[in-house]
Amino acid sequence: MRHLIDLITLSKATITTLLDKAELYKTKYLDTNATLDAFKGKIIANLFFESSTRTLLSFQIAAHRLGAIVLTPNMKQASTLKGESLLDTIHTLEAMGTDLFVVRHTDNNVAQFIASELHGPTSIINAGDGNNHHPTQALLDLMTIRQHKQQFETLTVAIVGDIIHSRVARSLVTGLKIMGVKQLNLTAPKLWVPDYVGETNIKIFNSLTDGLADVDVIIALRIQRERIQDKLIPNPEKYFQEFGITAEKMTVAKNDAIVMHPGPMNRGVEIDSQVADGAQSVILQQVSNGVAMRMAIMDSLLG
Amino acid sequence: MRHLIDLITLSKATITTLLDKAELYKTKYLDTNATLDAFKGKIIANLFFESSTRTLLSFQIAAHRLGAIVLTPNMKQASTLKGESLLDTIHTLEAMGTDLFVVRHTDNNVAQFIASELHGPTSIINAGDGNNHHPTQALLDLMTIRQHKQQFETLTVAIVGDIIHSRVARSLVTGLKIMGVKQLNLTAPKLWVPDYVGETNIKIFNSLTDGLADVDVIIALRIQRERIQDKLIPNPEKYFQEFGITAEKMTVAKNDAIVMHPGPMNRGVEIDSQVADGAQSVILQQVSNGVAMRMAIMDSLLG
Amino acid sequence: MRHLIDLITLSKATITTLLDKAELYKTKYLDTNATLDAFKGKIIANLFFESSTRTLLSFQIAAHRLGAIVLTPNMKQASTLKGESLLDTIHTLEAMGTDLFVVRHTDNNVAQFIASELHGPTSIINAGDGNNHHPTQALLDLMTIRQHKQQFETLTVAIVGDIIHSRVARSLVTGLKIMGVKQLNLTAPKLWVPDYVGETNIKIFNSLTDGLADVDVIIALRIQRERIQDKLIPNPEKYFQEFGITAEKMTVAKNDAIVMHPGPMNRGVEIDSQVADGAQSVILQQVSNGVAMRMAIMDSLLG
Repeated sequence: MRHLIDLITLSKATITTLLDKAELYKTKYLDTNATLDAFKGKIIANLFFESSTRTLLSFQIAAHRLGAIVLTPNMKQASTLKGESLLDTIHTLEAMGTDLFVVRHTDNNVAQFIASELHGPTSIINAGDGNNHHPTQALLDLMTIRQHKQQFETLTVAIVGDIIHSRVARSLVTGLKIMGVKQLNLTAPKLWVPDYVGETNIKIFNSLTDGLADVDVIIALRIQRERIQDKLIPNPEKYFQEFGITAEKMTVAKNDAIVMHPGPMNRGVEIDSQVADGAQSVILQQVSNGVAMRMAIMDSLLG
Repeated sequence: MRHLIDLITLSKATITTLLDKAELYKTKYLDTNATLDAFKGKIIANLFFESSTRTLLSFQIAAHRLGAIVLTPNMKQASTLKGESLLDTIHTLEAMGTDLFVVRHTDNNVAQFIASELHGPTSIINAGDGNNHHPTQALLDLMTIRQHKQQFETLTVAIVGDIIHSRVARSLVTGLKIMGVKQLNLTAPKLWVPDYVGETNIKIFNSLTDGLADVDVIIALRIQRERIQDKLIPNPEKYFQEFGITAEKMTVAKNDAIVMHPGPMNRGVEIDSQVADGAQSVILQQVSNGVAMRMAIMDSLLG
Repeated sequence: MRHLIDLITLSKATITTLLDKAELYKTKYLDTNATLDAFKGKIIANLFFESSTRTLLSFQIAAHRLGAIVLTPNMKQASTLKGESLLDTIHTLEAMGTDLFVVRHTDNNVAQFIASELHGPTSIINAGDGNNHHPTQALLDLMTIRQHKQQFETLTVAIVGDIIHSRVARSLVTGLKIMGVKQLNLTAPKLWVPDYVGETNIKIFNSLTDGLADVDVIIALRIQRERIQDKLIPNPEKYFQEFGITAEKMTVAKNDAIVMHPGPMNRGVEIDSQVADGAQSVILQQVSNGVAMRMAIMDSLLG
């Protein structure tokens, strides 16, 4: 693996290796607060053309823990101010010795495009492109699921909410299929049903009661307001009534079902605080796993 | 000590230990340009919801000198963009392994609030909340005073200017009282007299001639324009005439009185340049001491 | 050397030493991805009052590779928000222990001014002041030229475009004269002919055909739109026709002429993409050399 653009071409074995490596990082380094010198002298540049706080911080921490030189230029300023093209910016950073680009962009396929135009051996991690892919989020989610549910093959997973605008959902569906889950319940308002319906093991539901029935894993999604026309953004109270995850609505799921959310959460819209902070929530565990998984990915690409 | 929120609950012995430790850091590390590996692998996150340059830089330098991973996310963007609550941001950063938050906020009691809601062992330093507390500034000021005046018990200290809006003043009054100063002269326009008048050893003056008489230490304050209604902001020339520290007005103070200012200074408003840059000024020494004191505080909380 | 403000006072021997040292850094550290501990505990503060991405990144990488503590405060915010003077900001950063300021400013002579007002031993590198000097760019350009053309004394160098507004051009002319080039062809529209015409070995041309005849080195400049009145900014198509570097227009130059540009490029205006990405272009090599040269300069000032 030189780049991580999406999960589509990865095998179950490759993903399993990444999950194992991330567990090792978690135990060996994060739990003991250790920092490595493995990446001493290597340059990791975070190119975030779309704003981010938590994902950027997660990548920054992972890169620092590996001992790298970490750069986070202001790409909004860089990309517009002096009329330079995206590719010239990239080639400039390559020429300065960058070993890894972490790229986030509001448009689809930007990381892919950059990967196809590189002059040298620099690697790329796609940290989210438009509504297309978000492979590192999907991998940390798989890591979190595996910590609670050993066999993917026996699981029914519900993904709930704004699926159509969600790169998290798209990458998760890909990853869960590769890992061989038994069934995927895509549960969304009719307007937000994605275009990848009808595939094996994927069922579509427009009601929570049906979508959560007997599931092992519930993944609530953030409403991607920034990608929805104003007049199509649902009323928050109404949305919460129909699709917000509450303790009551979860009674149809398995008793030991876990609840996930990629964050940032809109409490009282996508999820009730009682659930978000409850015993079945693994939401903060997802965040912790994120740092370990990103260390594992970086190490796999550059190590 | 796990957090440093204010000085109220600290004993004279605890403050003296911090002053001693800061002197040690100054001699042992700052004067020799050394960097420690003591904090290798530890994460210090500067959460500045209110803009700052000098205080932020001072904390960043202290954290880097201790060998920590230093993160300074853009909190203005973070706090508003995607609707996430302050506490979810905090818990996310905790889950990523943050060991210490340095928090500055325009509102009072935010650091206190965060401290009360933490899930794990993360520490907090209050780097200024509204017009409430600014304990690290007060401690570096005590350090500076002690370098020139050995016995707090014999000192008369004048604090001059916009006392009511100043968290620096509030924390300094607390700290100076704990250290047992003989007398505190709060010297301010009538509108800016604080609500903590009438306490033992505190005298209120509305004229510089009275307030500076026989004092050992003069502390000028910045006019906190950002916390004053426009129509109540004084005319700068008039303010300088009445409350600006000048060589002439200082003649009533002791001959060896020192002059302090927490910065940034408005020269020609709060203080005359001749005084700011003069032989009795210890203003830049305050800045140097700031780095040593913040190293000492961080080490006391995490070490 | 304590500061690097401009090249004017440097001897050929001093510049040659810097070029040699930069080559050493390139071979010994950049090509092997090594990081030094030489600057451990030293503080380098990038004070960019004017926006920059590539130059800032180059300095940041150089400073990190030397092992320094690297600070990049937001100077636009710092300089205006609380009314503090530039010099008070500088003296504050000095008091915090800064060893080196890297200063960029839209106004001429700011780095010079700061250098003259320092209290202590802090060094300064001028990273560009107005349309005045940009010595590190000129040095990396000399380094790049020397890698291809051993003897400066035999070279004819064409500088093309917006010369009058360009600090790159001004510093390059100085540096090339010190190194003893045979001839300098300043090639510009009539409005953009600089005020340093008429010096020995300098010829002025208003047409590319004349300016590029028999030259060894072609240096295209960015149109400094931010320093030109709107109504005097040329039409891009018309400018490209007359002064854009194309393969066809380059046929009058020597066969082994190299093409340079300080970046960021406006492709199709100052330079044709076929040339920018062609076999004679050394533009990305300039970028790589920049990191090595800045390491060499920092080491010469602080080492």
